[in-house]
Amino acid sequence: MTTENTNDPLVIFTPSGKRGHFPEGTPVLTAARQLGVDLDSVCGGRGICSKCQVEPSFGEFPKHGVTVADDALSEFNKVEQRYDDKRGLQKGRRLGCQATIQSDVVIDVPAGSQVHRQVVRKRAEARDITINPAVRRYYVEVEEPDMHEPSGDLERLRQALEKNFDIKGVDADLHVLQTLQPILRKGDWKVTCAVSTGITEGTGAEKPAILQVWPGYSETPLYGLAVDLGSTTIAAHLCDMTTGEVVASSGIMNPQIRFGEDLMSRVSYSMMNEGGAAEMTRAVREGMNALFTQIAIEAEIGTDQIMDVVFVMNPVMHHLFLGIDPYELGQAPFALCTSEALSVRASTLGLTIHPSARAYILPSIAGHVGADAAAVTLSEAPDKSEDLVLLVDVGTNAEIQLGNKDTVYACSSPTGPAFEGAQISSGQRAAPGAIERVEINPETKEPRFRVIGSEIWSDEPGFADSVATSGISGICGSGIIEAVAEMRMAGILDASGLIGSAEQVGTPRCFLDGRTNSYMLWDGSADGGPVISVTNPDIRAIQMAKAALYSGARLLMDKFGTDTVDRVVLAGAFGAHISPKHAMVLGMIPDCEIDKVTSAGNAAGTGARIALLNVAARGEIEEIVRNIIKIETAVEPSFQSHFVNASAIPNSSDPFPILGTHVTLPDVNFNTGGGEGGGRRRRRRG
Amino acid sequence: MTTENTNDPLVIFTPSGKRGHFPEGTPVLTAARQLGVDLDSVCGGRGICSKCQVEPSFGEFPKHGVTVADDALSEFNKVEQRYDDKRGLQKGRRLGCQATIQSDVVIDVPAGSQVHRQVVRKRAEARDITINPAVRRYYVEVEEPDMHEPSGDLERLRQALEKNFDIKGVDADLHVLQTLQPILRKGDWKVTCAVSTGITEGTGAEKPAILQVWPGYSETPLYGLAVDLGSTTIAAHLCDMTTGEVVASSGIMNPQIRFGEDLMSRVSYSMMNEGGAAEMTRAVREGMNALFTQIAIEAEIGTDQIMDVVFVMNPVMHHLFLGIDPYELGQAPFALCTSEALSVRASTLGLTIHPSARAYILPSIAGHVGADAAAVTLSEAPDKSEDLVLLVDVGTNAEIQLGNKDTVYACSSPTGPAFEGAQISSGQRAAPGAIERVEINPETKEPRFRVIGSEIWSDEPGFADSVATSGISGICGSGIIEAVAEMRMAGILDASGLIGSAEQVGTPRCFLDGRTNSYMLWDGSADGGPVISVTNPDIRAIQMAKAALYSGARLLMDKFGTDTVDRVVLAGAFGAHISPKHAMVLGMIPDCEIDKVTSAGNAAGTGARIALLNVAARGEIEEIVRNIIKIETAVEPSFQSHFVNASAIPNSSDPFPILGTHVTLPDVNFNTGGGEGGGRRRRRRG
Repeated sequence: MTTENTNDPLVIFTPSGKRGHFPEGTPVLTAARQLGVDLDSVCGGRGICSKCQVEPSFGEFPKHGVTVADDALSEFNKVEQRYDDKRGLQKGRRLGCQATIQSDVVIDVPAGSQVHRQVVRKRAEARDITINPAVRRYYVEVEEPDMHEPSGDLERLRQALEKNFDIKGVDADLHVLQTLQPILRKGDWKVTCAVSTGITEGTGAEKPAILQVWPGYSETPLYGLAVDLGSTTIAAHLCDMTTGEVVASSGIMNPQIRFGEDLMSRVSYSMMNEGGAAEMTRAVREGMNALFTQIAIEAEIGTDQIMDVVFVMNPVMHHLFLGIDPYELGQAPFALCTSEALSVRASTLGLTIHPSARAYILPSIAGHVGADAAAVTLSEAPDKSEDLVLLVDVGTNAEIQLGNKDTVYACSSPTGPAFEGAQISSGQRAAPGAIERVEINPETKEPRFRVIGSEIWSDEPGFADSVATSGISGICGSGIIEAVAEMRMAGILDASGLIGSAEQVGTPRCFLDGRTNSYMLWDGSADGGPVISVTNPDIRAIQMAKAALYSGARLLMDKFGTDTVDRVVLAGAFGAHISPKHAMVLGMIPDCEIDKVTSAGNAAGTGARIALLNVAARGEIEEIVRNIIKIETAVEPSFQSHFVNASAIPNSSDPFPILGTHVTLPDVNFNTGGGEGGGRRRRRRG
Repeated sequence: MTTENTNDPLVIFTPSGKRGHFPEGTPVLTAARQLGVDLDSVCGGRGICSKCQVEPSFGEFPKHGVTVADDALSEFNKVEQRYDDKRGLQKGRRLGCQATIQSDVVIDVPAGSQVHRQVVRKRAEARDITINPAVRRYYVEVEEPDMHEPSGDLERLRQALEKNFDIKGVDADLHVLQTLQPILRKGDWKVTCAVSTGITEGTGAEKPAILQVWPGYSETPLYGLAVDLGSTTIAAHLCDMTTGEVVASSGIMNPQIRFGEDLMSRVSYSMMNEGGAAEMTRAVREGMNALFTQIAIEAEIGTDQIMDVVFVMNPVMHHLFLGIDPYELGQAPFALCTSEALSVRASTLGLTIHPSARAYILPSIAGHVGADAAAVTLSEAPDKSEDLVLLVDVGTNAEIQLGNKDTVYACSSPTGPAFEGAQISSGQRAAPGAIERVEINPETKEPRFRVIGSEIWSDEPGFADSVATSGISGICGSGIIEAVAEMRMAGILDASGLIGSAEQVGTPRCFLDGRTNSYMLWDGSADGGPVISVTNPDIRAIQMAKAALYSGARLLMDKFGTDTVDRVVLAGAFGAHISPKHAMVLGMIPDCEIDKVTSAGNAAGTGARIALLNVAARGEIEEIVRNIIKIETAVEPSFQSHFVNASAIPNSSDPFPILGTHVTLPDVNFNTGGGEGGGRRRRRRG
């Protein structure tokens, strides 16, 4: 910026507060650019795109120390009039490229005119998303070829992009070159370009590139996809890259399921079948293309309008998607082929979207803590937290992060599938008919529950009717957690994980079931339905799972040098359904104020969306991930002792004082001297 | 380099003359690296590759001011002994990474141990080629994965490349990732990588990238292709990227010939046939792959060992090869889609060589002066010439460059196909049976000639036998030039281009042939062969062609502000066969000492080879081409008057004084008052 002349009119932009003196006749857009005010323009000030709308204010502004005259801006000109006639300009609005400064003025840049507008997220603790996409539209007028100074059409297009938008050294894919000449002539040397603005830092670093050229001024929207590639489902959000709006969301089952339900069975499939990994790669890519087609149909766009796609996934899916055999992830030392972010052409991944579309895969944190965990980090920002946050994404593995703005630790812990209802006698996936909420009366030891698909508790009128369709089929992950916690609170279960007998507890719902006791939640046998009870092996499975989770968290707390955390964030679908109080009674998560335990929902998907919409977030998460201290639980001796302590409910060593202020756990012990648990008792008697 | 201690031993490297003091015990390789001496090493000093061989000298070196003791280097060690036993180390040689400095020493780096060795070219005026390939081999030992510090295998490979060879931020293609893990383990964490070292400047700028990984230490040679894609033929040289040696050369007809013999007929084909351009793109790419397969078979390598390929071609071929419709090149203002160099994956061009192979296409100079002309510039380096050089590549268009180290001008001039024997009554391509040399006795007006395939002149004994197989079938480009020039020197042809009658010239070989005279070179009719004569329309065609060439050159001389050039270089196959004296008699090239007219042979192919073997030459030629001043003859008014003057033989305006010292041209005039040429005469009489 050249030296200001303070005799020139003063221009103050709101909401940024940026201000400066500019000679009379300076267009508002020019002043905004010179001051670095975030004012959009696709056409570079030619009065075509109308993205640079501003709202001047008039009168006295003691706060700013100026008085704005009614004629502080130039009169409404022909270009503005034409735009108003054609499309309607909101009252009080001006086009920033047409209105010129005449005297001191205060100018507001409405949200819609900002390039880097914010997408506000609902949760109070979540950061807003800044829109700063990798691909943007630019309108330029290109010089015609001149035999006196021969130069290529692309070179003159480059010059126009550099001159008008300061985009230097832009590349063009072959397919752009192949149609460039007729498009330039069709548009009479006026064209709109979709330009990937380039990334100067991080693994994804690449030169700016022209992805597409349209004749004339085009408002063709640019779309991007945020994809969460899970072992079970693939979910995608289609976003308008300019507004940040999610225009369609869709999901499909991961077609790899036919090769194995869980990750380890897929790793085994690849180990035991020549070409198995390649087969799974093909399957997931085909599924991906089917999903993209489906979502494009839903949004009524062509798949070739999708120009950017961001992926998050766990390490095994990461390798299988890229065509890397996941063999090494199945055995110590669990070496990833690459942990860094990957920036490639979508076409190299076999994706049939726009031919020049870019694909970005977030970095992985470690062998068991993948790009999906990195996306959770990006969404929940433990690295920016003032207080100490424990971030848990529960699946077959729990990915655990603990930290604040100074340091973040991460590890994964093998919780197994119990939290998903597997390995539980009456367990099932969360689906209609599954018991999801449980309460047990500590006096009567009688339970009541709710099933997915009905809002009515089982002891309330109308319950039978409300579940007539779904039936009561089993118990899902959140249901089993509540059941076990309620059993502990009602004195049906002791701290070691033993269910008492009918006599010990004083209810016929407890019954000898093989060599240990079970607790009956629901007997549907009269109607031909199932008997749903919680068995002692179920308790053992939950103990193992929650001990793995807790001891991972506890290990990170040791590393951090703390015994307490300020808050706990549960990510993922499971985290969204879990009851914080019950999780804490189980000793699944560390002792903490219950209202400080929150759910982040699909944080991995959100993280993918952030990386899609804000290209700067990519370099940012790469840097964050590099700085995360990775802990491998398998080589940490204290993990085992934490695990043993955490097998007790809630814990045989850690005190849980805050939980104690809310809940008093009965001091029962159902060990009759024959040993602690079913397994051991059996061995002694056998 | 740290501060030297002058008490430390002095090391002097030859031939570079670089010198420095190093502590006792410093390996020679380390000293060489610190001094920036060009000493090769693939294994990074591990005694494996033996590329760092050096030759110490002992005794008195008054020139260097040192005395070298016999024990100036450490004793032959075990590693050297092992290498000597296994492969044999030349007497007097040491391994630079093993031998350490003990006292003052003079060390020679033999040519074979230099990375940037020179390929010496035969012609005195040609620069040697520096070997500095885009792809090189590096041997590294990679750290094993460690659960205490999880990181990806690729990241540790990157670290090794950075630590040992200072290669930063190296990329890896997906196909490299897909095989990286088993290869690292097979090689027990020792691997050899082919790394494209990256280009920091110019259009081809890209990050360094790993193209291939082999387990252990590998000496697999790296190959590259230099391809000259001509309208008629595609020629390729397969080069060993390390030695610069051409290991195989091969060529095929351009399969596009079926769509049109010359460029303009191919442009027409694309204009008149929907999808015609795409069809031609497919054809040339298929031909290219067939050629590459052929050349790989010849060299007994796999096509997947070819990792780099450089292309040169004219603008129409450039567009058709890239899949760009050449429509715009067929009409003013002759706008190229892009004139800059292109650096892409070979796979995006449909080439089936190494999956990560890079392709580089030299920049084009202007709409009619293509990447082939840029390659000629690279080979002949007018931009580095102390004297003023005229560089001419003759084909259907002549690409003309004039300049010296200060300025280079370029233009093209439409010579048409006459120089290739087309448009000539008895013309034919240069092939056995074609008359290629002609002499005419100025007294008797009798000709003698030589045909391609025989070394014997037509008036020498044994001639008939020597041409028995081929016959005498016609006259090729160089033959017609000599014939016309000899006719002019023998007084058969006047300066305006009229052939005299039998009476005027005094020989029955001149005969009335329609309305003008012809000169009979050979009458084969007695044996059923052709009558080969030079007709006045033939003379006209040659006049047009040579006038176009000369007036282009003359235009550049005007621009440069000169009436003379110091030397003329004729590039291309035609240039190799042309007689400088005859060309000058015709006034095809400017007046100049005849021994200053030289042939550069296939300069375009050589330029491609330079860009292949020396990656620095790519940025260099891009910069040179940007600085060349492009002249479009079509918009230069003086071009027409130069053309009219140049229609005379040699010229109606320019004096050719140097030619005059060698040759006296008879002052004949066969204009009988009825007009200058056949055409005009006909019109008057008709």
